Amino acid sequence: MEDKAQIQEAIQLQGEVVRKLKSEKAGKEQIDEEISKLLELKAQLGGDDVKQQFVLKTAKGTRDYNPKQMAIRGRVFDTITRCFKRHGAETIDTPVFELKETLMGKYGEDSKLIYDLKDQGGELLSLRYDLTVPFARYLAMNKISNIKRYHIAKVYRRDNPAMTRGRYREFYQCDFDIAGQYDAMIPDAECLKIVYEILRELDLGDFRIKVNDRRILDGMFAVCGVPDEKFRTICSSVDKLDKMSWEDVRKEMVNEKGLSKEAADQIGEYVSMKGGKDLAERLLQDQRMCQSKQACAGLTDIKLLFSYLQLFQVTDKVVFDLSLARGLDYYTGVIYEAVLTQAGVASVSNEDQNGASVEESVSVGSVAGGGRYDGLVGMFDPKGRKVPCVGVSIGIERVFSIMEQKAEVSAEKVRTTEVQVLVASAQKNLLEERLRLVTELWDAGIKAEVMYKKNPKLLSQLQHCEELGVPLVAILGEQELKDGVVKLRVVDTREEVDISRVDLIAEIRRMTSQA
Amino acid sequence: MEDKAQIQEAIQLQGEVVRKLKSEKAGKEQIDEEISKLLELKAQLGGDDVKQQFVLKTAKGTRDYNPKQMAIRGRVFDTITRCFKRHGAETIDTPVFELKETLMGKYGEDSKLIYDLKDQGGELLSLRYDLTVPFARYLAMNKISNIKRYHIAKVYRRDNPAMTRGRYREFYQCDFDIAGQYDAMIPDAECLKIVYEILRELDLGDFRIKVNDRRILDGMFAVCGVPDEKFRTICSSVDKLDKMSWEDVRKEMVNEKGLSKEAADQIGEYVSMKGGKDLAERLLQDQRMCQSKQACAGLTDIKLLFSYLQLFQVTDKVVFDLSLARGLDYYTGVIYEAVLTQAGVASVSNEDQNGASVEESVSVGSVAGGGRYDGLVGMFDPKGRKVPCVGVSIGIERVFSIMEQKAEVSAEKVRTTEVQVLVASAQKNLLEERLRLVTELWDAGIKAEVMYKKNPKLLSQLQHCEELGVPLVAILGEQELKDGVVKLRVVDTREEVDISRVDLIAEIRRMTSQA
Repeated sequence: MEDKAQIQEAIQLQGEVVRKLKSEKAGKEQIDEEISKLLELKAQLGGDDVKQQFVLKTAKGTRDYNPKQMAIRGRVFDTITRCFKRHGAETIDTPVFELKETLMGKYGEDSKLIYDLKDQGGELLSLRYDLTVPFARYLAMNKISNIKRYHIAKVYRRDNPAMTRGRYREFYQCDFDIAGQYDAMIPDAECLKIVYEILRELDLGDFRIKVNDRRILDGMFAVCGVPDEKFRTICSSVDKLDKMSWEDVRKEMVNEKGLSKEAADQIGEYVSMKGGKDLAERLLQDQRMCQSKQACAGLTDIKLLFSYLQLFQVTDKVVFDLSLARGLDYYTGVIYEAVLTQAGVASVSNEDQNGASVEESVSVGSVAGGGRYDGLVGMFDPKGRKVPCVGVSIGIERVFSIMEQKAEVSAEKVRTTEVQVLVASAQKNLLEERLRLVTELWDAGIKAEVMYKKNPKLLSQLQHCEELGVPLVAILGEQELKDGVVKLRVVDTREEVDISRVDLIAEIRRMTSQA
Repeated sequence: MEDKAQIQEAIQLQGEVVRKLKSEKAGKEQIDEEISKLLELKAQLGGDDVKQQFVLKTAKGTRDYNPKQMAIRGRVFDTITRCFKRHGAETIDTPVFELKETLMGKYGEDSKLIYDLKDQGGELLSLRYDLTVPFARYLAMNKISNIKRYHIAKVYRRDNPAMTRGRYREFYQCDFDIAGQYDAMIPDAECLKIVYEILRELDLGDFRIKVNDRRILDGMFAVCGVPDEKFRTICSSVDKLDKMSWEDVRKEMVNEKGLSKEAADQIGEYVSMKGGKDLAERLLQDQRMCQSKQACAGLTDIKLLFSYLQLFQVTDKVVFDLSLARGLDYYTGVIYEAVLTQAGVASVSNEDQNGASVEESVSVGSVAGGGRYDGLVGMFDPKGRKVPCVGVSIGIERVFSIMEQKAEVSAEKVRTTEVQVLVASAQKNLLEERLRLVTELWDAGIKAEVMYKKNPKLLSQLQHCEELGVPLVAILGEQELKDGVVKLRVVDTREEVDISRVDLIAEIRRMTSQA
């Protein structure tokens, strides 16, 4: 059977090869050759396996969450939701798909990663790529001019998955945004405070929050002599500085993108600058930078931002970093990104989607990002009415990866249920009595279980408790029934004590509230 | 502008007409005529509106949830999740899309309602149609032979939406399932107990849970002389008895489906029967019914089920109803469906997707359903290994509709945030002091807000609290700062009291824990 599974997998892969060639309109000969390989593989399976020729898997780049992963995910969401609520946010939800035209023209080059639905008659639809564009659509559609909301939901990108590093095609975003016409930098500062609080509470190790401003970048490009039409592409080169050396980025700018060496070198000077309020002040004195009104406005805001961040007591982790660019088209002002600065947790062996074993450490990287996007809502509003917005998105999949590995390394027992007591019996023919008792417990709000067997063995009932971490067992026997008591057993200590039926619920509550 | 929005809507609708004609391969003349109408409409908009030619809406059959709706939704989910956890369930999650072949052949006729993703190279994918098939795929893929899990997530059906009655194309299901080889009817009875608890706690008015068994239906068809090949189609006629009269169903069976009148009349006798354990016992004595081994097995199980339901104290709401059929292909044993029996809540005016006002009362209907599906996991397992399963799905959208209307009728103030205190100032130039204080509160875990203005008016700060139901305002002024106090105002009573800064956090906690 092992062999068969391998053949089925090979068939799946070969099927993809053929489909790809067809979609690329490859030569007929080449396609025929690959098809014959596919048929050969299918023949190996034999004729009686027709029903089983599908491969049992989730879609590429996606995964199931098992109960243990869900328990960890639940804790992370609780921490994040608690923070969002502490800052007074409401929550909304939007559909998983939008009209295709709603998403068009919002993501620049990345638009190619959008999942489209098949045209089955009716509207053309696409899966949401982030939560920001649907939020802007929601504001415009409902004519909302101010709101502070969070939204935790899955988004979809046809990207190259790197699942062991927490990069998936279906993944959660936890977004917090403030929309409305407010005084400069106050909401922006609160977004950074929130990132700070969440990363500290999640306890993922040390982190930095890099801050920059689109206007500073654009102004900098202008004063360095980058032609207008090259702003975007030079910006995307700068965006690579977290993964590539300056030398390589410079090469890309000059050789591939045709930027002059002088302009590149001037950019190089600026993008190496990192600091705080002091750096903003210094650059406001910078002769060249000051030629750009845009850059000046950005620098003045960064300075103000840092003064609020001081009041919020988060400046120890925030860095003004002129190399921060961020890809998305819709940002218009302040941008930021949080990165973990500690080395990744010890590498572990994972299985990738094809079952191959992969050794890889969880890479340290961006776990949150965001910025100001004052023009996006106006793109949807029929009157072009603008609603200034600023927000942050917590990229939770990497956090999950790290938390899962932590749980594994610490050998911590993660409980997947909250059962307080198992209703068990030591003797036969007590199913009815067990059902009667568990009903009493449920009706009193106690989390309780029975085994779904007429006559389960006591040992298997106790084992069930140890596996799932159930703290108490309520044991019924002929004698207990006669005496009007229940034997309550503490699983950890194996202590047993007879409790009168009338006191049982209070006693279970007492014993499990301590635990 | 109002006119323009109307034209844009007309364009959208006309565009759909054209697309539909094309997909139906209608005559060229007809298509051309409709296209010219479309172009005429577009011309009316004028050339400068190119950017705004999209219609601002969510996809057909879907909706956003605003903060108030989310607050209500959150309460419903809490009630349901609490019940699932009380019964000891773990939770899992699966991707929103599956390989297309995973869903194929599981839903009978309804398969045409599945949303497919566009083939963008790679695997062929479809949005999940329910949570049951992904669950079975998960069990087979991970070789799990027993689990008790719940899963709350959205599913997708290209059905005709009836949004005011809570029927959407994107909607939530709340599923609870028990998988494993257990003694008969114990897990089945627990599923019904769960439906009972949830419907009682949601307080939606009176309800009934109808119970039947696929084997009783099949046995009944056999002994009434329905030919084997007509079982499915006759079953789907019986399924309509909750919406159609017996006379009309009989007509459909005889005239459209070619069933003999004698067979139809015999079925008519059975499907009018409703009762409890007694009815199962009586039918076990029924000469005709007893000819079918299948029916006998089903009746014996129904009898056993009712004895467990008596122990669970839920028989007052459960009815053995031989007319219950249920559409899905995968059920193999017990099936059930819960319906609300009260008249719908007072009718309200709603806006439908196209903005037209629709008067419609929330119709009383099915709010939960489920049954036993012992063959589904085996369809996925490479070895055909079976895992018996039974489960229930709570159809939560109708519940939301009812709860929303209830909230509207009762004029109950639904809070959308949990903010305990707004940090305000009565004088100018106190932004820094406000930010300092709100930071103290956040760091102490208090849910707090400030207005994002340098110098907000006290009145607008107080209004914000009244709108959002924030119970307390912490007011800072020059005098308070000098005295080292904060003026704490209770929004409801307008009482104000000076609290020393050191006692503030404890005082806020005390005052809001009472609220």
